[in-house]
This record gives sequence, structure tokens and C-alpha cells, in this order.
Amino acid sequence: MHDTPAIQHQHDQVRALRWSEEGLYILDQRLLPEAIQYHLCTQASQVAEAIRTMQVRGAPAIGIAAAYGVVLAARQCWQDHGNQWKQFIKTEIECLAHSRPTAVNLFWALNRMAELIEVLEEDPVARLLKEAKAIHLEDIAANRKMGALGAQTIGTVQGVLTHCNTGSLATGGYGTALGVIRSLKQQGNFTQDEIQVYATETRPWLQGARLTLWELEQDRIPATLIADSAAAFLMQQGRIQWVIVGADRIAANGDVANKIGTYSLAVSARQHGLGFMVVAPTSTIDRNLPQGGLIPIEEREDKELLPEYYRRSDSLAKAWNPVFDITPAELITALVTERGVIPKPDPASLKKLLQDV
Amino acid sequence: MHDTPAIQHQHDQVRALRWSEEGLYILDQRLLPEAIQYHLCTQASQVAEAIRTMQVRGAPAIGIAAAYGVVLAARQCWQDHGNQWKQFIKTEIECLAHSRPTAVNLFWALNRMAELIEVLEEDPVARLLKEAKAIHLEDIAANRKMGALGAQTIGTVQGVLTHCNTGSLATGGYGTALGVIRSLKQQGNFTQDEIQVYATETRPWLQGARLTLWELEQDRIPATLIADSAAAFLMQQGRIQWVIVGADRIAANGDVANKIGTYSLAVSARQHGLGFMVVAPTSTIDRNLPQGGLIPIEEREDKELLPEYYRRSDSLAKAWNPVFDITPAELITALVTERGVIPKPDPASLKKLLQDV
Repeated sequence: MHDTPAIQHQHDQVRALRWSEEGLYILDQRLLPEAIQYHLCTQASQVAEAIRTMQVRGAPAIGIAAAYGVVLAARQCWQDHGNQWKQFIKTEIECLAHSRPTAVNLFWALNRMAELIEVLEEDPVARLLKEAKAIHLEDIAANRKMGALGAQTIGTVQGVLTHCNTGSLATGGYGTALGVIRSLKQQGNFTQDEIQVYATETRPWLQGARLTLWELEQDRIPATLIADSAAAFLMQQGRIQWVIVGADRIAANGDVANKIGTYSLAVSARQHGLGFMVVAPTSTIDRNLPQGGLIPIEEREDKELLPEYYRRSDSLAKAWNPVFDITPAELITALVTERGVIPKPDPASLKKLLQDV
Repeated sequence: MHDTPAIQHQHDQVRALRWSEEGLYILDQRLLPEAIQYHLCTQASQVAEAIRTMQVRGAPAIGIAAAYGVVLAARQCWQDHGNQWKQFIKTEIECLAHSRPTAVNLFWALNRMAELIEVLEEDPVARLLKEAKAIHLEDIAANRKMGALGAQTIGTVQGVLTHCNTGSLATGGYGTALGVIRSLKQQGNFTQDEIQVYATETRPWLQGARLTLWELEQDRIPATLIADSAAAFLMQQGRIQWVIVGADRIAANGDVANKIGTYSLAVSARQHGLGFMVVAPTSTIDRNLPQGGLIPIEEREDKELLPEYYRRSDSLAKAWNPVFDITPAELITALVTERGVIPKPDPASLKKLLQDV
């Protein structure tokens, strides 16, 4: 657990993923905040299962975990099949690709690993590990960059609201939306008396209550939890000036798929004339999807919502449990990427962003 | 438990309050849906405690419970102090008045009982009981009337969303917003294939998940639970045409205090051009309060939201837990009362409604 490419600093103590020679250690986020427990994955199928069962979640973290999963797959295929390894690794990559449907970073990371595999011949493990670590490191660097850009865009502020968990737990480290909050803190844009970071609890999985509060506390950042449904009232009371969220997939026109509830926050922010900031690396942009309505939205089991009493065969009660929603580009004040900030994203500005490499 | 003035019908099987000669039986709503358990209150202080601890909740039900509480107080005071009973009952009424702060029906019912007490002399119990039963019966009648008016206003519909619990459990019987849904069902405004009643789970207390689904199931009405934060996405998908909610207090200008999350639903409904209906008896209108910002908003303990892990003395995480919010009148499509429907409520239309007695 000493081989992880993850430089930490004062406001960034947490890591969801740690690579070691034995394999990939995944922090089981289902157990937080009560227990800090890493599970060792030595096979790609274990990584896929960890993603599917949400031991690790968050679009960028899923992508990074999958990249390490490809390394584990390559190690196994090389060991079992030698020079025939490439014939066998495809199934493993398929398995990783089917772990969750919405976040595009997963497919982006797997494609990047698959493209490298195309040109590899001999023992591929060292080279693939180097690539996975690069993906991991680049993510942290992108988050630091986005943190600085986002904090600069916001300037002085008294209160911000964030949704779900978009921090070190959801990424390689530092975080996207939570990275901006870390940077605001770092840059002293909060005065000590004025620090007001609000976090939604984020039903049904409680990423905000369980993960965001915990992660911020590790970095000594105070935060206040609210019910998801209290966000509009919080805005009405003038307690916040910005809503800052991440993204699971961004369409070519700037529509954003993110944790269920994001759209509602964007509508309420507009109603109150507040800033609505989306923070995501360009790997989150799916340039092949013209608009958000085409993004596949995962629906998870109704038992995440439905009390056990109603899970009888003769029950008249059921649940609808989409775990993401679509926020139209027109409600977004600023899209922050590692390549720059786009005010009011639209097809032209996104196209330009992706060309400027 | 056979003395309760509560005519039930096919779509109205549930009662939160049942009077008997022994006292007031209160259905403990904290235990639903897993257990159906009535607690007998023989003293006013027990009723106040049941309101404070949310064994009974819902603005109209609280008012009715308090009225029965006054009967219990009178019985005790008459028994202990004979002709001096009036000197002692005031403290008991004070105690009932301090059980919850936001819903105005509590104060309305206590005032009505107190005004009657002014003119009573001898053994007051029979007369006060008659009054409490009248309050109870009038509430059910008002709900039936509002149900019919609301259903008529809505007409044909494919899907509706309701928030919190506003049904028989929250009232004398039948319900306010849920009464409108019962009436829609009764009048066949749903076709069998098209029935889509959505209920928010209503964090943190889960009135929707625990109470509304249960109550609807008792009356054979299917319903679908959603996370509070999924409401805007539900609207974006075109699944509902109306949001139907109750009210805890309505200011003289039509601003509505109701369960936290109501305001967010109203903002989202406006964004999607949907109808937003508030259903409440005129006893919910506080004609002395010019606008919603003056309504006292109860904040409950942070432990309703905050995971136990953070309830340490050195924790940096806290919670903000307002349990009601304010929806401005301008977002309300129709206010349904037992005296008629007001489209787009404002000070003039509310004043006229209260005069037309």
C-alpha cells in the first residue's frame, strides 16, 4: 500500500484506491463513516464486483479502479496463457465495462487501456500498470487544476452547497466539486467565521451524510448536513451563493448527467439567481452523445428506497429509483474542466474545449 | 373505541385518533408500517407528549388530538377541583399549545375549546366532548368536500405527486391532499391502466415511505415511492401533471408553510408548467400573519439527519433540520379549502374566502 501515485496535502488526506504489488486495495465506502476497511482485489472480476456493489463509486474513481482492474486482468491472462494473453483479456474488460452504465469515465479509462493493449506484445503488466498509474495521477492533477479554476471563478463566498460525494473518495484524490471547496478553503476565500459548507444527505445511498461529511472532517473542514429537500429553502434564506456538483457524463451540448437530485438543485438555483457550477474532467464528456436525453440512466433496486414492509409479493407499493438525472446545459452557470472554465456551456464551446489539446 | 365520529367508506379505512369512554386512543405513527398500535391517553399531558414526540402528526390531526386533550384536562380538573376547574385547566391548555410550534390548527382548536370554556359553568365534560367530536366530524366533512373540489379542479389526469402524509393519519379522516387523491380514485378520473400516484419518501421522518404508502395500501390504492430529490426528474419525464400537498399554516397573503421540500416541489412544478395544488381547511389560515416569512419554522434535533458517528463532542459535522418551509403564494395554482377553490391565492381572495361564512 505504499506504491500509490497520490501526493497528499493538508486538505487531502483520503484515498479510495491504493495500488500495491499484491493488487488493488479498495476502501469499502459502504462501511463509512463507521469503519475504514480496504479490500484487496487481485482479479479484474473482483474490481467489477466492487464497482457494481458500490464499494467504490464516483465517476472518476470508477474509471481509475477499472484501469487497475485491466492490470490485474493482464497479470492473470499473461500468467495463465502467456503470449495468447490478448485473446483472453477482452472478456475481462467486457466484465469491467458492464459493472455500471451511466458514468462515462469507466468506458473512457477502459478504452484508453484497450488502445494500449493493441500495441503491446510481450509481458504487458508493467506497461499497463504504468498507464493505470498515469490515469490515476492525471486525475489528481486535473482535480487540483479544477479546484484552483473553480475557486477563482467563485471568488469570495459565504456559503456553498454540494450534492452527493465528489471528493477524494469519488476520484483519484482531491475531488471535483469537493476539490473546488478544498481550494476555496486553501485560498482563504472563506474567512473563519464565514465558513459554511452545506452538504445534502443524498438519498437513497446517503453519499453526502456518510461520505462527504466524513471526508471533509478528515481534512478539518466543518460542514452542515441538510435533507435533500431542504436545499431550496436554504437558498430562499440567502445562506449560499453557489451550488457546486460533479458529473457522471456530459453530452456534447453541455447537458449533465449526475446524481439524482442535481437537476432539482439546478432549477432551484436558477429560481434564486445563484451560481450553479459543474466540475468534471474532460474524460467525463461524451462527445458522441448530442444531448443529455440520450444518456442511459441507471435505475437501482427499489429496496434502496422501499421499506421492507412493502417488499411482499402482494404489496401495492413500489418504488422508482433512478440514481442519476439530467440537468440541461442552460441551467449551468459554469462548467469547470482541467482545460478551462466554460461559462454557459453549449455545443460550440464544448467542441472548442475538446479541440484545444 | 366505538364512540369515534368517523364514518368510513371504501377508500378511507384508517383512523389516527379514536375516542372512547376511557380516553383518547392515539395510533403511534412512529411504529408504522410495521406495527399498528394505539396508545390510550387519559390525561392532557399525555396527549401533549404524543404530539411532541410525533405519535400523532399532521396539522389537522394535531388540532383534533388537542381538542380531545382539553376534554381529558376538563375531566381531571372537574374531578380534582369541582367548581374551581376553570382555574386549573389553563395550565393544561398551555401545555398542549407548546407541543409543536408551526401548525396553526393546534392553536385554532385550542382557541375554540377555550372560548367554549368561557361560557361553561357546571360539569363541563359532556359539552366539551361534544365540541371535540364536532371538530373531528367537521374536519372529516371538510376533507370530503375538499376531495371533491380538488378532484373536480384537476379533472382527468395520468399522474400526480404528493409529499409527506396528508391522509387519514394526518387529519380526522380521509385527508387533505390525499383526500383529493382518494376522490380522484373514487370518481374514476384515473383509468385502471393509468393510475400513477407518486409519493415522496419525505426525509428525514419518512412520512411518505412509512405512512402514505401504508395508508393508500389499506384502501387498495397502488402508489410509487420516489426519493425527494427525484421529483424534478419525474416532472421532466412527463410522468405527472399535478403536485398535491397539504399545509401546516397559510398566511393572509396565501404563502404556505408545509413539510420541508414543499417549496422545492413548487419551484420544480413551475419550471415544468405543472399544476401545484394546496389542500387545507380554512382553520389552517392564519389571518393575523400578513406573509409566510413570519410563520415560525420548527427546527428539530439534528439526530433525525446526522448519522450517529458525527454526534461526538469533537465532530466538525452538524445538521440543519428545519421541518417546514415556505412556499410563496405566486407558485400555487390552486388553494382548495372546504369553502371553495381559490386559483392563484392572494390577500384579497383569501380575505373574501374568510368573510363568506
